[in-house]
Amino acid sequence: MNAIARLLTPRSVAVVGASADATKMTGRPVGYLRKHGFTGEIYPVNPRVAEIGGLTCYPDVASLPQAPDAAIVLLGPERAEQAVRDLAARGTAAAIVLASGYGEADEEGARRQRALKDAAGSMRLLGPNTIGLVNLTDRITLSATGALEMGNLRAGSISVVSQSGGILGSLLSRATDRGIGFAKLASTGNEADLDSTDLMEHLLDDDATRVIAVYMEGLRRPEAFRRVALRAAAIGKPIVMFKVGRSESGARSASSHTGAMAGSDRVYDALFRQCGVIRAETFADLLDIPAALAAGRRAAGKRVAILTSTGGAGTLVADSLGLSGFDVPVPDEATAGRIGALTGEPASAARNPVDVTLAGLRPDLFRGAIDALQESPGYDATIVIVGSSALAQPSLVADAVVECQARSDKPILCYVSPHAPEVTRLLNNQGIPAFTAPESCAAVLAALQPRPAPDTAPPAPADADPAFAALPPGPLNEAESKALFARFGVPVAPEAVAQDPAGTAAAAQGLGDRVVLKVLSREILHKSDLGGVAVGLTAEALPEAAAAMLERLRAAGAPAPEGFLVQAMVRGGVEMILGFHRDPQLGPVLLLGMGGVAAELLQDTALRLLPISRADAEGMVAELRTGALLKGFRGAPPADLPALVDAILAFAAMAGAAGERLLEAEINPLFVLPAGQGVCAADGLAVLG
Amino acid sequence: MNAIARLLTPRSVAVVGASADATKMTGRPVGYLRKHGFTGEIYPVNPRVAEIGGLTCYPDVASLPQAPDAAIVLLGPERAEQAVRDLAARGTAAAIVLASGYGEADEEGARRQRALKDAAGSMRLLGPNTIGLVNLTDRITLSATGALEMGNLRAGSISVVSQSGGILGSLLSRATDRGIGFAKLASTGNEADLDSTDLMEHLLDDDATRVIAVYMEGLRRPEAFRRVALRAAAIGKPIVMFKVGRSESGARSASSHTGAMAGSDRVYDALFRQCGVIRAETFADLLDIPAALAAGRRAAGKRVAILTSTGGAGTLVADSLGLSGFDVPVPDEATAGRIGALTGEPASAARNPVDVTLAGLRPDLFRGAIDALQESPGYDATIVIVGSSALAQPSLVADAVVECQARSDKPILCYVSPHAPEVTRLLNNQGIPAFTAPESCAAVLAALQPRPAPDTAPPAPADADPAFAALPPGPLNEAESKALFARFGVPVAPEAVAQDPAGTAAAAQGLGDRVVLKVLSREILHKSDLGGVAVGLTAEALPEAAAAMLERLRAAGAPAPEGFLVQAMVRGGVEMILGFHRDPQLGPVLLLGMGGVAAELLQDTALRLLPISRADAEGMVAELRTGALLKGFRGAPPADLPALVDAILAFAAMAGAAGERLLEAEINPLFVLPAGQGVCAADGLAVLG
Repeated sequence: MNAIARLLTPRSVAVVGASADATKMTGRPVGYLRKHGFTGEIYPVNPRVAEIGGLTCYPDVASLPQAPDAAIVLLGPERAEQAVRDLAARGTAAAIVLASGYGEADEEGARRQRALKDAAGSMRLLGPNTIGLVNLTDRITLSATGALEMGNLRAGSISVVSQSGGILGSLLSRATDRGIGFAKLASTGNEADLDSTDLMEHLLDDDATRVIAVYMEGLRRPEAFRRVALRAAAIGKPIVMFKVGRSESGARSASSHTGAMAGSDRVYDALFRQCGVIRAETFADLLDIPAALAAGRRAAGKRVAILTSTGGAGTLVADSLGLSGFDVPVPDEATAGRIGALTGEPASAARNPVDVTLAGLRPDLFRGAIDALQESPGYDATIVIVGSSALAQPSLVADAVVECQARSDKPILCYVSPHAPEVTRLLNNQGIPAFTAPESCAAVLAALQPRPAPDTAPPAPADADPAFAALPPGPLNEAESKALFARFGVPVAPEAVAQDPAGTAAAAQGLGDRVVLKVLSREILHKSDLGGVAVGLTAEALPEAAAAMLERLRAAGAPAPEGFLVQAMVRGGVEMILGFHRDPQLGPVLLLGMGGVAAELLQDTALRLLPISRADAEGMVAELRTGALLKGFRGAPPADLPALVDAILAFAAMAGAAGERLLEAEINPLFVLPAGQGVCAADGLAVLG
Repeated sequence: MNAIARLLTPRSVAVVGASADATKMTGRPVGYLRKHGFTGEIYPVNPRVAEIGGLTCYPDVASLPQAPDAAIVLLGPERAEQAVRDLAARGTAAAIVLASGYGEADEEGARRQRALKDAAGSMRLLGPNTIGLVNLTDRITLSATGALEMGNLRAGSISVVSQSGGILGSLLSRATDRGIGFAKLASTGNEADLDSTDLMEHLLDDDATRVIAVYMEGLRRPEAFRRVALRAAAIGKPIVMFKVGRSESGARSASSHTGAMAGSDRVYDALFRQCGVIRAETFADLLDIPAALAAGRRAAGKRVAILTSTGGAGTLVADSLGLSGFDVPVPDEATAGRIGALTGEPASAARNPVDVTLAGLRPDLFRGAIDALQESPGYDATIVIVGSSALAQPSLVADAVVECQARSDKPILCYVSPHAPEVTRLLNNQGIPAFTAPESCAAVLAALQPRPAPDTAPPAPADADPAFAALPPGPLNEAESKALFARFGVPVAPEAVAQDPAGTAAAAQGLGDRVVLKVLSREILHKSDLGGVAVGLTAEALPEAAAAMLERLRAAGAPAPEGFLVQAMVRGGVEMILGFHRDPQLGPVLLLGMGGVAAELLQDTALRLLPISRADAEGMVAELRTGALLKGFRGAPPADLPALVDAILAFAAMAGAAGERLLEAEINPLFVLPAGQGVCAADGLAVLG
């Protein structure tokens, strides 16, 4: 067994700094271990007490009868380091340090955290600033969370990895009330050693875990996370992620909470999308979606049947589903006939939601209607709405749903409309995902939809290309930038460089009747603003125009340019932006955006972390909100989508081959021409380090 | 007392069709009346029973000892009509009909509903297809909702108007669990007579009601609603609206539920915005927002302090607030000093969320920190997060918050992080809005923000203008349309009409070097598609171009045009769209949209119902997502906003003066020129009826 396995399923546990006073935080862990049924050895360590609740209490780690598999350290930051050192010396596999006042606090705390990690040596460490872990599969609690005061904790198939201990406790108490069980829950806190990704990776191989729910403030090892998440997708074990730091306030708060750095949330979103991670939008979703996924069924599509005994709630759910892009179609003829036969109404009156208010809540009717809907080829899932009429006999609904679920492999979800916790618990207990917010149904059904398998083996980054060695650091000029892009296969506009105004006319040769003239400079980044761009010129007019341009630049005090660029005019097509930058937290990022001021203003862009696969590039194009402009909007010809995808991949290959040297790059505009005519980069910039 | 007042606060109630079997739906209302403390006369009516629970039961309405103030009719649709007729004959003020199978069902049901209304004569009617009403201020229940099984219903200052009875019950049971009280709740069902607007209007004068929460499927009298909502805004009694029919599925479901027609949800949104109605986005908001408004405090701005004893939940709330546009700034120096003095940490360590985890949950510390935050000039509201550490002593938190709230007039909200219904109830009971979803804090704070008072007296529609009398029905051609718009003050591009190609050169006089040539026709709606537009022509080139245009139209089989329009070229500025149409449900609607394909694709438009005030017109401009384009985006000159607002008002005045005759109208494009240069309509269409 590796150290993480021993930490999660120890046969012996030392509780260092345990108090005999059960009302104190330091008194809780021993009590919780016994209360929740831990059957291994418990070694309280406290020099001032002889025994705790009948257990021998040891004065120090050295006097323990054997090296424990795991230890939980309840001492303050001043004494925790020595305890960790002692535990490591005894050969403990892993220790949990609860104290805060480390990296999340200040510089002194960060130093203390490094010392703690050093003291642990080869022993693994969970925390500091963690509430510990709870293993309900094996009934092992190594935690001080107040949620363990509850007695009715259920074992289940959802595991939780949370950087925050408070969130772990909140999920545990909320799930218990709802009748939802967990396998393992671990809070990683400051992640001095073990981080969220380590825990997720371990849970991939935990048979009791079917779904992993993650609360994240920031990711420390993005590449390792990507590998783990792709493996999770490959083995079909969904990761549901609630990540804060979506706003500046949240990012700042997260950083002072567990010391995690947020990075750009949009880049996180891209990363999650790329590796098949399901993102929870609300805190409630972080429980609702895993609960539905744990039931093991998936919806083949978006057509939903709603069965209700209360019209208003049916409308509420139908409306919310419609808003989220689901269909709530009327039953097909055969299904309508079956329902009509049950309710006594004509089949032509059949609707969706199917309202059985009038017919009353008869068990046979209820079962018959659910079966008819589940067996209909017109539906991919059924939502059963539990109204107040079911309150008197909660098991009537639950039994019927459980029975009908077994006869079909489509998902059934329940929305409990009145406040009726006992009904919700009963349903969840029996494996029927049951929710108390109408909006949950849509969020959950979205997570149950078929999703394209992420490319689990994106192309490895290419070796550094020798072309880069010859290039100087700093911004390249436009001609150098575009030559670099072209080298990797990005089509660029035909162009030629002239050293001086006199040479521009000859440079225009073969570029068409009218050309574009631009100043060429590594130092002038906003050419247009300084009058450094002129369009629609004939070859004859170029020398004079170039001379005038030079004069304007001199007058504006601009540095002397390297020369002039004469470029063919690019006409037609859709203007786009293709960019590259480095996210300080997550690394190299590709950006595809729609051009034009309105689209730029609305930030209609798609991001992906490098490396990317062809499917990723296609996904970027599909993600743009104004992507319809590429498909031939308002009579325009459809754009050359394959050429656009090729250009994205070529640009990505260029960025990959640059290794660490490429700091940023942009093609703006990239003209996507009508189908068959390719794409064309009309301006570009690369900045090297 | 008017009939609605007698219905809500009757001294005597007839229960027609009451059953002696309390387990039956028809047995409930008599039991509920007594259980919840009704002190007036109860007259059960049922020919087959002599008494119900000790009350004399009357064989029919005619034999009642007196005319009751109100009646609740529990009979099926076959017998309800006669009961209503009998009740009206006895002089009952108002009757509630619970049965369904009326307008919501089918044509036969619609006929039955008209007959029911006829039978009521001058007696007011609530329903049919309603669950009735509950008056908790006076402890009067005229309802069969199962939510009345609960015993601990609280009187409060929120009133509910719901078209759905199920939703009424759901709100009642959910609020009771949360410790939130109601004044009155009424379900209007099919609204054969009394509708939501009638009830809202009545509640404006109900002293016990401070906030009105509305669940709506569709509005039957938009003009009356607008009047009532504007009065509500004027007297400061907020209306919080959850309206379904936001999606097609929801609209279809609503229509089959209570027979309400949905209309366009975007137009509803405009109406609500215009009259200061607060829209609830989720079903939970429909309880959360009224609960906070009922506490009576408002936030002066968006700067929020968060006090937490659990770091993760603090981050969760800070993140959610940031996403919704709130600020979570660090404390100012003085406040940081006060908090530091309490926690013993240096003032420089002060953050927001203020995390008191380390200092422990000491009452003095807790009170001191809340006071410091509430008294800080840097914050407009405080959110107190209740963590699991408070579970052991729920009143510790509640008492401190209640005490501190009294010392300031800023709002305090609580987010209860673990599952702890008793804490939530305790807080709400004591007037502290307490929520169980972190996202609720942002939704609620948004509703507590200062909002511009709606213009409670928008300009009355003008009298029908005689200009319209002279115009034929059907589409006007471009010149006629623009002349109509110009008559009301919309600036249009200089132009002249020519009867034939030969006349076009003369028409170009004074219109500049280059002009636009367009075919003029009432029948050709898409001129460009047929080659009916040519731009950048000199006067000399016009006759030939016009002849060629005529030839193209002939070849395409287009009808013979009325002539040609020669128009000055309009250059520069921002292209917009200004339109008018009639919403089938809500009436005349104005649309302002940003031009350009990307903005059109994203439907960047703002709507308002006519009539509109200047503030409404300014609001339309401010609402556009790409409105930054008007403010001088990327070095462009800022656009002439006052002229745009004038043009919107002129267009609105034109639509108002048209009375019912204007079916639709559009200016596309409307050029908004740089500041001081006005606006210019470059194309237009009006369709008359």
